[in-house]
Amino acid sequence: MSGFDKQLSRVSFLVSQKLDTILAVPDGPESWLFEAMRYTALSGGKGFRPFLCHAAASLFEVKEESSVRVAAAIECMHCYSLIHDDLPSMDNDAMRRGKPSLHIAYDEATAILAGDALQSLAFELLSDEATHDSPHVRVALVAGLAKAAGMHGMVGGQTIDMLSPGLTLDAGGLTRLQKMKTGALIAFAVDAGAILGGASNEQRHALAGYAHDVGLAFQIADDVLDVQGSQSKTGKTLGKDAAQEKVTFASLLGVTRAREQANLLVEQAVSHIDIFGPEADALQQAAEFVIGRDS
Amino acid sequence: MSGFDKQLSRVSFLVSQKLDTILAVPDGPESWLFEAMRYTALSGGKGFRPFLCHAAASLFEVKEESSVRVAAAIECMHCYSLIHDDLPSMDNDAMRRGKPSLHIAYDEATAILAGDALQSLAFELLSDEATHDSPHVRVALVAGLAKAAGMHGMVGGQTIDMLSPGLTLDAGGLTRLQKMKTGALIAFAVDAGAILGGASNEQRHALAGYAHDVGLAFQIADDVLDVQGSQSKTGKTLGKDAAQEKVTFASLLGVTRAREQANLLVEQAVSHIDIFGPEADALQQAAEFVIGRDS
Repeated sequence: MSGFDKQLSRVSFLVSQKLDTILAVPDGPESWLFEAMRYTALSGGKGFRPFLCHAAASLFEVKEESSVRVAAAIECMHCYSLIHDDLPSMDNDAMRRGKPSLHIAYDEATAILAGDALQSLAFELLSDEATHDSPHVRVALVAGLAKAAGMHGMVGGQTIDMLSPGLTLDAGGLTRLQKMKTGALIAFAVDAGAILGGASNEQRHALAGYAHDVGLAFQIADDVLDVQGSQSKTGKTLGKDAAQEKVTFASLLGVTRAREQANLLVEQAVSHIDIFGPEADALQQAAEFVIGRDS
Repeated sequence: MSGFDKQLSRVSFLVSQKLDTILAVPDGPESWLFEAMRYTALSGGKGFRPFLCHAAASLFEVKEESSVRVAAAIECMHCYSLIHDDLPSMDNDAMRRGKPSLHIAYDEATAILAGDALQSLAFELLSDEATHDSPHVRVALVAGLAKAAGMHGMVGGQTIDMLSPGLTLDAGGLTRLQKMKTGALIAFAVDAGAILGGASNEQRHALAGYAHDVGLAFQIADDVLDVQGSQSKTGKTLGKDAAQEKVTFASLLGVTRAREQANLLVEQAVSHIDIFGPEADALQQAAEFVIGRDS
């Protein structure tokens, strides 16, 4: 295991530990809902978004209790989006993180409700005093996550993605879709670290540039994995984009040029955070991880 | 139109006006999502929850811009819950507010996404500076709404309701279900007015007692309407509870005793807010409206 993999695992472990406590299963019939939420939220995702938040916060010596709580909120939001995206009326995907999707393991109604509750939980976590002493910081986190998740962000992007087989998207249109669908939450994860740390405008701007490029590289790499990845390593159904006749960076640019583009974006991302010096090593490695991963 | 009906319509109009602005349809394919959100959020619900928030805030001379924004957030949250509850895998209800449910008028995927985005929008509205100058107040509103909406509130209650044909609920179990499913958001609507107004502990406690009783009376009246109401007036499918073999207050107590129970609760609710004197007339009328309504 590389040093970076160890760091990634460590943050993922801390976030899982936090969610394990918060999602302690109560007595009563609502235990069914909690079990379903745990099924996805504790299913051992890579924790890339939580890691970005934690690594950005580390630049500013934010207390780990704070950054782990915010990272956990981001993971809740991410998991809710996976659960709803996998539903039969959406991407209809029966497999996620190497096991049956939530609506297969439970049922559709439970999957809808578990996703809904994970979204609420994300905001509950951020607004709680335990996350940060300052209500300014807590409410800024809420505002940022709500925008990233909603109609101008993740859900807006998922809507365009759903409609995309009927649209003729060019590279500009596809980039905009991606920026909303996956980029917004990745950008928030990095910005959340900056908000927690009281970053200067210059620092926040540098991190935003980094996050933008990493987000786009992440999506391009995902599109390439959908064409060339291994189902057993990714733990999800591959070849979906082609089957659904979706325009992707791989279909638009070809796999070779898509890879080159992702590499360029990662170089560019890393140059944005030069101003932090070696303190930003974890963020640099995170950017490189995006294009090196096989899952 | 009675004085109360006029007040109810006025608040509902102000909330619709606010949502009409916020949900202005953008260019681009995401316009589809915005149209779907508008279909339900601007479909002319009674606006009972927004009214409660506005009336409670009025006790403390809160600026109307603030209370209308918070009322709009509550309406977003309520609309999202209606959209998801109506889905085929949940209550499978084709009719809502006198027109086809969103998943019928659009499709299931769009209904899931529109609900998801309305939940995010509720938190976006509350966290925005335009809602209140104080970040303390804004973050308290977010925390309250997140708890009311999530796994210990509305979604937890909807889960129990969904499981309830297989449960043997007694009056205590049913009351607990109701308190989560519909009571939590009603209680938050009233509490939000108190939070906006910087209410004292005594005032907040009195309002919480009022909201608890009104919420329960509301559900009992709804159960009675499901048995004895008019489909054309309620604008939704009736007789659902019996068809789905759900235990309700009407089935548990019989219609006559259920009505008596609701009347008692309304008397009790009104007595809780005695401390505000005639200033609380709007809240008193709101409580009486709950048992007098035919829709």
